[in-house]
Amino acid sequence: MDTTAPIGVFDSGVGGLTVAREIMRQVPNERIVYFGDTARVPYGSKSKDTIIKYSRQIIRFLQTEKVKAIVIACNTATALALNEMQKEFDIPIIGVVQPGVVAATQTTKNGRIGLIGTESTIHSGMYPKLIEEIMPQAQVIGKACPLFCPLVEEGMINDTITTQVAERYLSELKKQQIDTLIMGCTHYPLLQDTIAQVMGEGITLVNPAYETALELKQLLERENLANVCEIDSPSSMYRFYVSDTAEKFKKIASFILPFDITMTQQIAIEQF
Amino acid sequence: MDTTAPIGVFDSGVGGLTVAREIMRQVPNERIVYFGDTARVPYGSKSKDTIIKYSRQIIRFLQTEKVKAIVIACNTATALALNEMQKEFDIPIIGVVQPGVVAATQTTKNGRIGLIGTESTIHSGMYPKLIEEIMPQAQVIGKACPLFCPLVEEGMINDTITTQVAERYLSELKKQQIDTLIMGCTHYPLLQDTIAQVMGEGITLVNPAYETALELKQLLERENLANVCEIDSPSSMYRFYVSDTAEKFKKIASFILPFDITMTQQIAIEQF
Repeated sequence: MDTTAPIGVFDSGVGGLTVAREIMRQVPNERIVYFGDTARVPYGSKSKDTIIKYSRQIIRFLQTEKVKAIVIACNTATALALNEMQKEFDIPIIGVVQPGVVAATQTTKNGRIGLIGTESTIHSGMYPKLIEEIMPQAQVIGKACPLFCPLVEEGMINDTITTQVAERYLSELKKQQIDTLIMGCTHYPLLQDTIAQVMGEGITLVNPAYETALELKQLLERENLANVCEIDSPSSMYRFYVSDTAEKFKKIASFILPFDITMTQQIAIEQF
Repeated sequence: MDTTAPIGVFDSGVGGLTVAREIMRQVPNERIVYFGDTARVPYGSKSKDTIIKYSRQIIRFLQTEKVKAIVIACNTATALALNEMQKEFDIPIIGVVQPGVVAATQTTKNGRIGLIGTESTIHSGMYPKLIEEIMPQAQVIGKACPLFCPLVEEGMINDTITTQVAERYLSELKKQQIDTLIMGCTHYPLLQDTIAQVMGEGITLVNPAYETALELKQLLERENLANVCEIDSPSSMYRFYVSDTAEKFKKIASFILPFDITMTQQIAIEQF
């Protein structure tokens, strides 16, 4: 395997850019090919079979870009499709759930862990299952927050309506004596201030993006895949692909990433 | 053409059922094949090319069901794809925009017409263009309301948060001296009470579903396509297909339609 090959990173849309950003920080020597499935976003209310099909098409596309490893930067796709994709493809594939689980179990003192995410992620039960394997005595209290993603996409990041929606979604969780809350959707770190304010003091928010980038770094070193060659400027190191047109993607992307995206290419993802 | 053949009706998801319901009322003698593109919902933030591709696949699928006419029961798909689909296919195809335009121009007294819809519908400019053809002196004031669909899908029909979102979206429209407001998205009639309350007295809400069913009725009579044979029970007259699994669709559908949907079949729509 060519160690100068890029890392493939994908998500249903822009949310996975919060993970890509963290990968850029922690393994700055690596090229990235990012795919956002903006023609079929959102994933969070769709079924396992559909998400497996979509993930398979995206990984086939990323393979045409000669990626050396893949990060599923979407909690829904990780929860519903990671296991199947690891069986189907030879290339190393990691998701965002396992890293979030590790971070949460290291953070909690009282073993009571809250989890927020899309309907599909919560419904999958993947987080509680993996947490139980590491910390059998832990209790996981999950809550789906379907409106958080559209609110982020509407740019209502600091907004009284978003605060009220958060209060509605989180009111039950606040009564559960949790000390740790996993932001189990890659959009949610953009609402971190609102979520922290509603939850109040004494609760640590876990953003799986940081731990995911760390796991990727360890994987690349373990498998002798890390790039040791000279690096270029960001514009040549990072490539962005989407399944719908690029206008809206670019706008939100430039808000999440520390540089402006100049080139984004549209792909007919159904053909893969 | 076989006059006992069904009418094809499609939408990105459940919204088009508000149109199907009206067709069931006004032409009770007709069979319906409904397709909801639940694996790729929503359409309202996606591009023209993508919506044309999706519409083409759906019409090809509906043709395998031997439909005699097609209703695009989605404002976004009508605004972005109706013209192209009418050129590509020989079968009669109608949309929801033209009927909404006719209703609005017949309703307005002062020629000031408000329009709410998805980003893509508002951005397309199709409503103002068609209104101008009928009523050149009319003024159309449009406003995209991207959160209305997810709020409906969350079941937040009568809710203080939905009222606040409506107040936010509609505050500018309220200052525009409009006397007519087109609900330019098939989800919005489910929020009719909230929208009417926020807009206040003296403003007539136009739901294009009623006029669409009327246009379909006239089309069937004009083209000698109306079914004059004996009719069966609803369960055999109406067939429902979706691109994702049927659970959530059935739940919302049973809330919109006057009967419970017993059978819904999943279709791999990308293959058409």
